[in-house]
Amino acid sequence: RTVIFNLSSFSLQGILERLDAGEIVIGDGGFVFALEKRGYVKAGPWTPEATVEHPEAVRQLHREFLRAGSNVLQTFTFYASEDKLENRGNYVAEKISCNKVNEAACDIAREVANEGDALVAGGVSQTPSYLSCKDKAEVKAVFRKQLDVFMKKNVDFLIAEYFEHVEEAVWAVEVLKESGKPVAATMCIGPEGDMHGVPPGQCAVQLVKAGASIVGVNCHFDPDTCLKTVKLMKEGLQAAKLKAHLMSQPLAFHTPDCGKQGFIDLPEFPFGLEPRIATRWDIQAYARKAYDLGIRYIGGCCGFEPYHVRAIAEELAHERGFLPEASEKHGSWGDSLSMHTKPWVRARARKEYWENLKPASGRPYCSSMSKPDGWGVTKGGKELMQQKEATSEQQLKELFQKQKF
Amino acid sequence: RTVIFNLSSFSLQGILERLDAGEIVIGDGGFVFALEKRGYVKAGPWTPEATVEHPEAVRQLHREFLRAGSNVLQTFTFYASEDKLENRGNYVAEKISCNKVNEAACDIAREVANEGDALVAGGVSQTPSYLSCKDKAEVKAVFRKQLDVFMKKNVDFLIAEYFEHVEEAVWAVEVLKESGKPVAATMCIGPEGDMHGVPPGQCAVQLVKAGASIVGVNCHFDPDTCLKTVKLMKEGLQAAKLKAHLMSQPLAFHTPDCGKQGFIDLPEFPFGLEPRIATRWDIQAYARKAYDLGIRYIGGCCGFEPYHVRAIAEELAHERGFLPEASEKHGSWGDSLSMHTKPWVRARARKEYWENLKPASGRPYCSSMSKPDGWGVTKGGKELMQQKEATSEQQLKELFQKQKF
Amino acid sequence: RTVIFNLSSFSLQGILERLDAGEIVIGDGGFVFALEKRGYVKAGPWTPEATVEHPEAVRQLHREFLRAGSNVLQTFTFYASEDKLENRGNYVAEKISCNKVNEAACDIAREVANEGDALVAGGVSQTPSYLSCKDKAEVKAVFRKQLDVFMKKNVDFLIAEYFEHVEEAVWAVEVLKESGKPVAATMCIGPEGDMHGVPPGQCAVQLVKAGASIVGVNCHFDPDTCLKTVKLMKEGLQAAKLKAHLMSQPLAFHTPDCGKQGFIDLPEFPFGLEPRIATRWDIQAYARKAYDLGIRYIGGCCGFEPYHVRAIAEELAHERGFLPEASEKHGSWGDSLSMHTKPWVRARARKEYWENLKPASGRPYCSSMSKPDGWGVTKGGKELMQQKEATSEQQLKELFQKQKF
Amino acid sequence: RTVIFNLSSFSLQGILERLDAGEIVIGDGGFVFALEKRGYVKAGPWTPEATVEHPEAVRQLHREFLRAGSNVLQTFTFYASEDKLENRGNYVAEKISCNKVNEAACDIAREVANEGDALVAGGVSQTPSYLSCKDKAEVKAVFRKQLDVFMKKNVDFLIAEYFEHVEEAVWAVEVLKESGKPVAATMCIGPEGDMHGVPPGQCAVQLVKAGASIVGVNCHFDPDTCLKTVKLMKEGLQAAKLKAHLMSQPLAFHTPDCGKQGFIDLPEFPFGLEPRIATRWDIQAYARKAYDLGIRYIGGCCGFEPYHVRAIAEELAHERGFLPEASEKHGSWGDSLSMHTKPWVRARARKEYWENLKPASGRPYCSSMSKPDGWGVTKGGKELMQQKEATSEQQLKELFQKQKF
Repeated sequence: RTVIFNLSSFSLQGILERLDAGEIVIGDGGFVFALEKRGYVKAGPWTPEATVEHPEAVRQLHREFLRAGSNVLQTFTFYASEDKLENRGNYVAEKISCNKVNEAACDIAREVANEGDALVAGGVSQTPSYLSCKDKAEVKAVFRKQLDVFMKKNVDFLIAEYFEHVEEAVWAVEVLKESGKPVAATMCIGPEGDMHGVPPGQCAVQLVKAGASIVGVNCHFDPDTCLKTVKLMKEGLQAAKLKAHLMSQPLAFHTPDCGKQGFIDLPEFPFGLEPRIATRWDIQAYARKAYDLGIRYIGGCCGFEPYHVRAIAEELAHERGFLPEASEKHGSWGDSLSMHTKPWVRARARKEYWENLKPASGRPYCSSMSKPDGWGVTKGGKELMQQKEATSEQQLKELFQKQKF
Repeated sequence: RTVIFNLSSFSLQGILERLDAGEIVIGDGGFVFALEKRGYVKAGPWTPEATVEHPEAVRQLHREFLRAGSNVLQTFTFYASEDKLENRGNYVAEKISCNKVNEAACDIAREVANEGDALVAGGVSQTPSYLSCKDKAEVKAVFRKQLDVFMKKNVDFLIAEYFEHVEEAVWAVEVLKESGKPVAATMCIGPEGDMHGVPPGQCAVQLVKAGASIVGVNCHFDPDTCLKTVKLMKEGLQAAKLKAHLMSQPLAFHTPDCGKQGFIDLPEFPFGLEPRIATRWDIQAYARKAYDLGIRYIGGCCGFEPYHVRAIAEELAHERGFLPEASEKHGSWGDSLSMHTKPWVRARARKEYWENLKPASGRPYCSSMSKPDGWGVTKGGKELMQQKEATSEQQLKELFQKQKF
Repeated sequence: RTVIFNLSSFSLQGILERLDAGEIVIGDGGFVFALEKRGYVKAGPWTPEATVEHPEAVRQLHREFLRAGSNVLQTFTFYASEDKLENRGNYVAEKISCNKVNEAACDIAREVANEGDALVAGGVSQTPSYLSCKDKAEVKAVFRKQLDVFMKKNVDFLIAEYFEHVEEAVWAVEVLKESGKPVAATMCIGPEGDMHGVPPGQCAVQLVKAGASIVGVNCHFDPDTCLKTVKLMKEGLQAAKLKAHLMSQPLAFHTPDCGKQGFIDLPEFPFGLEPRIATRWDIQAYARKAYDLGIRYIGGCCGFEPYHVRAIAEELAHERGFLPEASEKHGSWGDSLSMHTKPWVRARARKEYWENLKPASGRPYCSSMSKPDGWGVTKGGKELMQQKEATSEQQLKELFQKQKF
Repeated sequence: RTVIFNLSSFSLQGILERLDAGEIVIGDGGFVFALEKRGYVKAGPWTPEATVEHPEAVRQLHREFLRAGSNVLQTFTFYASEDKLENRGNYVAEKISCNKVNEAACDIAREVANEGDALVAGGVSQTPSYLSCKDKAEVKAVFRKQLDVFMKKNVDFLIAEYFEHVEEAVWAVEVLKESGKPVAATMCIGPEGDMHGVPPGQCAVQLVKAGASIVGVNCHFDPDTCLKTVKLMKEGLQAAKLKAHLMSQPLAFHTPDCGKQGFIDLPEFPFGLEPRIATRWDIQAYARKAYDLGIRYIGGCCGFEPYHVRAIAEELAHERGFLPEASEKHGSWGDSLSMHTKPWVRARARKEYWENLKPASGRPYCSSMSKPDGWGVTKGGKELMQQKEATSEQQLKELFQKQKF
């Protein structure tokens, strides 16, 4: 078997040139979850002050995704809007300015991107300002502040990601388009559509009309569910006779039991999700299905570790013509086991074995499905709330309406 | 709540001074599994050439464990004996000498240890030489070669770990004791004892008589099973009126369905173990049980990521008087969720919730238990072998006898 | 607690008088499955020659359902059409005529009905003649032959049940209506509709237009799925401004993983369904939901044993004003445990306990879901077929088209 | 395929003549569970007043077991000792004397036994008198009262079954031996031994020394666990150089998660055990293992329905030379499916299919294992008790000591 480990085989072109030429672009994985496990991000606030506090940790994770095959390094600017950082600010040991966090994120991403041939994408995501009913101008100002940094640092293109409301996503795309750079837009929605009930096909149409060249979904749902949603987006665009590239960056967690708002409502979120983690083989299956659906920007979100990204690159190695650097340390379909001393372990060095394995959980007291929490949905959820805090149901309802849930 | 994030609270003393004084020493986690997922180690050979090829990746993982609370950094020298590296050498892109791998491992560990107050432990593990029936002198020579590097680099103490046969472990301890440094010894056995049937209690007695000051188990089994084995060791030592400190470094995988040879025989090993990964709460429970059993050197092995080590440190924060640095990014028992916008997620910010959660797998087609493979054990195993290779059963038996399985 | 065990509280009126007056009519359970386990029916043919061969066994089962609360005893004439009996005839030890089987069924049902106040319903079900493309006249002749017996024996009303194709069900209803007696019609379909894709709402409309006074579903799916289908029927009738009573007789098996053709395609059918058997509490939940949906003819099909029927009667005891006879041997919600010698068993004598119990399977190697077999659906199904018989895929397709699957 | 359905092939000899000659004797199944589901026995008291109240239901169940292959019909006298009937008497609608219940049980069993060639066995089981610390003479008097009926009705042999304490079982055997008839004795214990910690081997020795010719276990545990216990009994007898025939009558429920006191402590007992019900294939595997272990009296207890007994008879048809009558309605290993209209269902008509099937539960919210309740064992158990009743822990302890738990 001859394989090419060749970084230079990937030409230094922009994101749209690559996609227009039919290339497969591989995204990266989820920073907040990976860095939470490494000790640099706090679950709950999920803010990226690590870019300033511990740049070496952020740099190393970028590098691992690059080695694994990522063609795009997203700046670690998730939840780095000024309003979010302030909102969650009490978690940050020493106050760090919003600009500083975003600038450091750009610098680190570029430094690592230059080690290979990856592009750097500046990212914005949904804001507390929108949820607390600030008006369009105020919300746009928040995005514009981050965009200023991205322009100063000259990122290659822009991503508006993790939006639950298409209205806010459209505002974000409109701001990002002011830059003249290509814009991708992904929503964290499932097949039922956004939080106001706008179906995925219609979301895609609005985003493309607002200026996005690439649309799709990220986060909140497992690969199968995300692909269903992108399929609906694709159909919506076709019906509207609009053209755009498709993108998917799902969770690396199995979440068939999710409700409309995704994995956040699962009882296991965020500290008990381990039994749901996708294997590399699950991700290879995802990459194949995404490709077959016509998606050409294929990446991941929360739960994706470097080996999951490598699995995308390995599944599509034939289509792309090369393997990522990190495949030097990975035999295709388990063939690195072929020298194991135990014959029955050697017998696992083959595609059929791993493709068909239904892995056991080793957890005889656990079920396969959970019932999602959620206000108005489960009795358990309400009881928990009542135990935790004296908030009355009326107060909860008001809270909800205020927060647009 | 006032907590102390204080590295200097841990005095710069040797391993035995610490343990003798009743301190809890926290070990680190498993390097080969963690670095395999990051793209720097190949499953199958599991060799540590990354110390030379990608020192930045090894350094960063050491640093994460240090931040998480590890008081000992083990040199990344697992399977770094000369015979093993040669045996698996064809996987290493450019030939790297055994000495170079071991020396780089010592340098990196020391560099990071100096960032805190951790000790550096040089480690040796079981050898192909023993399995291929080389004699005592030859096997000892292999260990001695690694010991020479550890002495030159002046590690703080030594660990003989991952031994399936107590005979070989004793030989390793005897060699390491030549150094005059403290020696810890752990075997990768379960309650049934070593591969020749020597029960855990007797293994512990032999290891202490050979010179080990600290004995216990590592790898191959989940925390519960490992603690059962250490308990048997403790009882064996008590019966023999011998004294030693106890140590445990289990898997962070649930493996109640393992046979005698541990998780290697599970069908999911090594690429489908995800649903078995322990949560941080599982590890807190483990830390408590280990402490209650009298174990004072508490760490982990394959599957342990930095957040698992942090869970040990958090569970025992009261006993130790301080929290690890990485707890700045972690609320005790989920309390970082107390500001979440959704009330039912806020309701998860409490100990009872996470302590009692039975996490669902999200995998409705998977069972909770697997049947371990193994020659002479399962029909499936034999069939797989027959499909994979033409090796006759007779050949397999001969192979087995030759390999001491 | 005062309860009335009162058979005479139920007036001796016809089925429509009862339903029109708003009474709840409780059906019986599945004879072929229950008698298969008792040793009198052969799985595969599923024919009811036991009415002649072992009338005592059929009589006893009728009696148990009567005691459990059934207000209708269906003649055990499932698959007793002449074409079916001939088709499967080689399974019957001595050839028994179709008429003899149907007559004996009527006699036994009437004998037991007279022990209480139950009605006797003569039943017809789908025929091999339809599946082998016989024309309308031929198929109707088959139904008419059974109807002749029902008229001679003067059953109280008629049921056309277990139809996969609405066309055949309509023909059956048309024949049965010739009698002047009330006709109920149930199909063994799910929410996706009949085997030609006619949706449930439309099926209901056609059946009512053909003359059915009661419509609904039976068999093939679990209670939850059946209720979804009846809901669609109800909506279809409302949209068409038609009136009919609603009826449901689901499986007593959990089948969330069924495909369009129901539990027959599950790998466990028919000899491995045990882990799916509904508890009495599952059936109480079903009875409540059925009632809330407006269904007033509530019974069961395959898997329903007498205690499941009793669970319907107990759940609706308040609405009906009395308990069935067999409740003398059953404490409501487990209260017969309140005298147990073990305190923790006594603690189970309460509604909350049983209502919330999620029963474990005791089967650690089994999953929660199966993938249904079915031509064109699963690879596994095709492989099994290939192993079993040399039938080519082309032959299978022809077979299918011929058999109207 | 030629099979013999031949009742006369089984000679009309006594139980010991049959066993001494090496014949396999097939027991019957569990009456209280089967009749509870049919509506004639109340869970909790579990008393057999149905012999008087509804003899037709008891007769029919005996007949089904006979057809299924049972060579022994046990009188339905479980918990029919005078002290038990009085203790639970308030559940019996009209007071029925102990003698009347026992006499009717004998009459019904003999009537059905004469329809074939089965033996009738009179049975006694553990008594409230023993649990409430009555002395030996008082307890023996209770057994003697039942024995008087068995002698008057001239049963063929006697069984002392369902004993948790070997001391009481020995007293029962001593009383039964006074009759001069052969005595079998089975305990409802697991491998850990009786409730006072007497190991199974020692129990067997004591029972044989007291006069039992047949020893073994019944109830409380699944087939696998029961066979482990019988194996220990066999080894105990061998070590003591005693001879006796072996007998096993396990549950037809999967209970790998049971504690020492068996399935009663499982949270599912007795109204949520459905997912644990053994398939016919599970029972065939049990019959084979029992036979291979040297057990020649092979039957069942709670959960065994007629089709489970038939499975024993079918598995051992080759060894016995004939099939039971009910096999007329059962194809070996599913071969009655070979004429099914769907090819993928026909493909299930083979041994390999059913032997290897791991049946899904269809219950995605349920686990595979439960944690048994039990005083001093689980927190949950205690909490339930506290909720249920104000009994203090001290009171519970006293209760326990008094009740010999």
